[in-house]
Amino acid sequence: MSKKVAFIGLGNMGGPMAANLAKKGFAVTAFDLSEAALQNAKEAGCDTTSDPKEAVQGADFVVTMLPSGPIVELVMVKQGLLDAIPSTALIVDCSTVSPDDSRKIAKAASERGLHFIDAPVSGGTAAAAAGTLAFMCGGSAEDFERGKSVLEAMGVNIFHAGDHGAGSVAKVCNNMLLAIHMAGTAEALQMGINNGLDPKVLSEIMLKSSGCNWSLEKYNPVPGVMENVPASKGYQGGFMVNLMLKDLGLAMEAANSSKSSTPMGAMAQSLFSMYRNGGDDRGTMDFSSIIKLFE
Amino acid sequence: MSKKVAFIGLGNMGGPMAANLAKKGFAVTAFDLSEAALQNAKEAGCDTTSDPKEAVQGADFVVTMLPSGPIVELVMVKQGLLDAIPSTALIVDCSTVSPDDSRKIAKAASERGLHFIDAPVSGGTAAAAAGTLAFMCGGSAEDFERGKSVLEAMGVNIFHAGDHGAGSVAKVCNNMLLAIHMAGTAEALQMGINNGLDPKVLSEIMLKSSGCNWSLEKYNPVPGVMENVPASKGYQGGFMVNLMLKDLGLAMEAANSSKSSTPMGAMAQSLFSMYRNGGDDRGTMDFSSIIKLFE
Amino acid sequence: MSKKVAFIGLGNMGGPMAANLAKKGFAVTAFDLSEAALQNAKEAGCDTTSDPKEAVQGADFVVTMLPSGPIVELVMVKQGLLDAIPSTALIVDCSTVSPDDSRKIAKAASERGLHFIDAPVSGGTAAAAAGTLAFMCGGSAEDFERGKSVLEAMGVNIFHAGDHGAGSVAKVCNNMLLAIHMAGTAEALQMGINNGLDPKVLSEIMLKSSGCNWSLEKYNPVPGVMENVPASKGYQGGFMVNLMLKDLGLAMEAANSSKSSTPMGAMAQSLFSMYRNGGDDRGTMDFSSIIKLFE
Amino acid sequence: MSKKVAFIGLGNMGGPMAANLAKKGFAVTAFDLSEAALQNAKEAGCDTTSDPKEAVQGADFVVTMLPSGPIVELVMVKQGLLDAIPSTALIVDCSTVSPDDSRKIAKAASERGLHFIDAPVSGGTAAAAAGTLAFMCGGSAEDFERGKSVLEAMGVNIFHAGDHGAGSVAKVCNNMLLAIHMAGTAEALQMGINNGLDPKVLSEIMLKSSGCNWSLEKYNPVPGVMENVPASKGYQGGFMVNLMLKDLGLAMEAANSSKSSTPMGAMAQSLFSMYRNGGDDRGTMDFSSIIKLFE
Repeated sequence: MSKKVAFIGLGNMGGPMAANLAKKGFAVTAFDLSEAALQNAKEAGCDTTSDPKEAVQGADFVVTMLPSGPIVELVMVKQGLLDAIPSTALIVDCSTVSPDDSRKIAKAASERGLHFIDAPVSGGTAAAAAGTLAFMCGGSAEDFERGKSVLEAMGVNIFHAGDHGAGSVAKVCNNMLLAIHMAGTAEALQMGINNGLDPKVLSEIMLKSSGCNWSLEKYNPVPGVMENVPASKGYQGGFMVNLMLKDLGLAMEAANSSKSSTPMGAMAQSLFSMYRNGGDDRGTMDFSSIIKLFE
Repeated sequence: MSKKVAFIGLGNMGGPMAANLAKKGFAVTAFDLSEAALQNAKEAGCDTTSDPKEAVQGADFVVTMLPSGPIVELVMVKQGLLDAIPSTALIVDCSTVSPDDSRKIAKAASERGLHFIDAPVSGGTAAAAAGTLAFMCGGSAEDFERGKSVLEAMGVNIFHAGDHGAGSVAKVCNNMLLAIHMAGTAEALQMGINNGLDPKVLSEIMLKSSGCNWSLEKYNPVPGVMENVPASKGYQGGFMVNLMLKDLGLAMEAANSSKSSTPMGAMAQSLFSMYRNGGDDRGTMDFSSIIKLFE
Repeated sequence: MSKKVAFIGLGNMGGPMAANLAKKGFAVTAFDLSEAALQNAKEAGCDTTSDPKEAVQGADFVVTMLPSGPIVELVMVKQGLLDAIPSTALIVDCSTVSPDDSRKIAKAASERGLHFIDAPVSGGTAAAAAGTLAFMCGGSAEDFERGKSVLEAMGVNIFHAGDHGAGSVAKVCNNMLLAIHMAGTAEALQMGINNGLDPKVLSEIMLKSSGCNWSLEKYNPVPGVMENVPASKGYQGGFMVNLMLKDLGLAMEAANSSKSSTPMGAMAQSLFSMYRNGGDDRGTMDFSSIIKLFE
Repeated sequence: MSKKVAFIGLGNMGGPMAANLAKKGFAVTAFDLSEAALQNAKEAGCDTTSDPKEAVQGADFVVTMLPSGPIVELVMVKQGLLDAIPSTALIVDCSTVSPDDSRKIAKAASERGLHFIDAPVSGGTAAAAAGTLAFMCGGSAEDFERGKSVLEAMGVNIFHAGDHGAGSVAKVCNNMLLAIHMAGTAEALQMGINNGLDPKVLSEIMLKSSGCNWSLEKYNPVPGVMENVPASKGYQGGFMVNLMLKDLGLAMEAANSSKSSTPMGAMAQSLFSMYRNGGDDRGTMDFSSIIKLFE
């Protein structure tokens, strides 16, 4: 008999994730406030409900994909969803939230005898649709192993980062580092261009040298250097500046609460913030467009 | 008959480079101010001389490996070495100098009808000894092709970055980017550690995610995460903080003269500078020890 | 008949503030969790109580001086103090909290028909004892005028910054700017010293030039340049690094929530954070000791 | 009999400075490459010449006001002006040059038995015309005293900073600090505005608090807060962004050569550089327009 999954939150990411679960044979009951989102989920093979507490009845897994930590807390604690979840279920929170919020929600679940892992995703809407997301998980080894069966239906790289909150920590560390090397790659390439170098040639050299990094290899910010990256498509699609700023905000929050010094991350945040404030539509462009700040 | 190479500058890098040229069959005449360096060169199969103008007599190639741009200029222009070099020779300057200095020296050579490429190296003393250096070259396509025969005796990756000075530009862009992602990697790992994560686990996760970069992959700054890197050997060997600061100084000079904005590079320079000033022996430690600034 | 003041929170700042109110003729009923603090308040002429709801009975003013925004919210909203305050009273929150928290608490008060101003202080424990604090206030003009009578018993500069939350905004803007020019002054003076200049002479020159700022004028960070500043007393006393970091945290929170770009403030935060992390006792030293980071 | 002054360099600053010297009774012989500049000098009461060596014949003082250190060196050393200056004259270099260049020129003068002080100015073209410049001087106490008689004809604050080069050091320290508090003031005021505060009110509060600094007091960057500052005149006039960037370049050079860490200065340089690169005409606007980067 197929395992039952309650899926809470059917946005741009959650919608295709729930669809993939249904496609892989899970019995999904999906909840969202939006009628349209519910309709899409139905067409993708999910049962739907307008009552989250009904969704979790008899569930083996409760997967949440909500916009922020305070909203996860609102739904779970204040609106009482935790109190409706069966004690045999595993809660898998895929929302991107601060490590502190992750730990707070995990604690609220534990106090009710519930099993919980934080499992924020890496990868955008394309990866959500293709079922190739990465998940960085925090929780006990047992709960992680159990969660894997669900996560593997939605992604390909499933990491166990450590205890409760460790998934969120790993995510903010990774994305802060991504922001840093993207901004650094952009300014290095622009300095090369300003000195008359062909950015394609400079990129090839640095790819084979110690400057090599993911931004340079998969996501070159200069238009025309790589095909099929946002830079070559008017910085459309990809990972929006606003989302990168959200993740950098969480990173700075985590740095502050753990008394970590993150000068490069803080600088990246300042740069993305100045860049966004410099033009109306920049927040919704791909984050590699940060290179425009250096032109 | 073997090609004749005049080798000017037999320091920690130049010494083994000249030795490799001799080993690969070039007829090397080596010059340095140090008697001990000349003695080593002789034992490695080079002819030696205490007069640089004698060294370049009849040379097919003149390879220079000197400590700084002003010193290259002193030897070449003010002390008149350029006037002694045969017009049929190719000058290959492997010194790390600013792009502006590179172009200035290339211009002085061109004005005398001489062929010149700038070919700064990437890789340290171990790569110099093993003959596995990388060279980033600037000059005409013809001169680059001709220079390759010499450079391939000393290294494995030989890049043509563009016109005169482009080799030096590529080098400072690359090393600035290296400084940025090393500092960023260090602070991201330290933030993970401060939040209770195992740096080994966090490194593995980021290596397979968008945070991936050369510092994480080849040169992890946390002791014990990788074997055989400076971090696991007390930050000895490797690439000294002082040398990274020298390269960052050249990068900032290049940024300034080309009106490029390099905020991440400037931040990296500030961090390495504060780090060095914080303890007597830090300048001579490996640059991955920058993580100590965040502990 | 003297006006009645309920004073909530008798810490290093609140204690002497309550004492000044009593000295100036207000009928103060003081509350704190600490017995010792209550004892001190009693000796200073206050009535005391271990029940905050009792303290506010019949009060004309309720002055709060608590460690953080979440704690003000806890006491006021969750523990229900707001519900015990008479509708004729004016609440004056002198705690240093984020602008968002200020507005949240003001809103909770308004919803109950209560009058509220945020009135964070500037100046340390010495100014609290001397009654020479500055207050930056947010709220209606009427409430501000009414609050002034109380605030003038504790301080000398009483500013009306604007609506609810504006006092907290002004405070974080001011203290962020203070952190910036202190760090900048420290590095400028150190660069002068490193170039052989006498810091006293350089300070005098900059004081009469466009580099002039409060840090240079009132609080020189180099030992021996000014008498009676923390720098000349082993960086003891004054304004602790930990408190500056608290304020910078609030500033970054305010920047983030208002989409403001604050690169200089973020840099100052990074510097004070690295400085604090570099030694066990640094958090409790005066913030002008940041100059040690540049030595 | 009036003292003879040779004045070398009649640009926007040098022209009015020479005119003031003539007006105060010095016998000025002025030199510049521009015919128009010479004509203006003549009308202001100077003798003129198209040969700098002629200008210095019999001079008691040689005042130089040239665009950069390399140009001072070119004129003085390579073109041989030093060899034409009488040994009884005092050379007063008012050009803004790096401390290293200052010391180099002082050394070249000393080697020829000549007296030299570096005396870079603070204040713009208006102060040059009004004779209210400030001078920061480096050299022996005797030479400083002697130079004062000339400098007092052109300015009001004449400081002795220390030995040769100390004037240039003081100038770059001061202007770096100015850049820092201007950028910091701009971002603090913008954060206030973004939170609904009136910048005039916030400025008044910070002026009386610990955020106070010269930028806030004399040069508010928000249009309309102060009259008669560049911000209230479309950021025209005042101190151009390009000139501030020149001074920051010299500051970073001085930091580098003295192994000083100047993270706040480097950040200010990054900000002014990004700002200038963001629009064609920004380099020639007043430097307080940096606030546009934060809007």
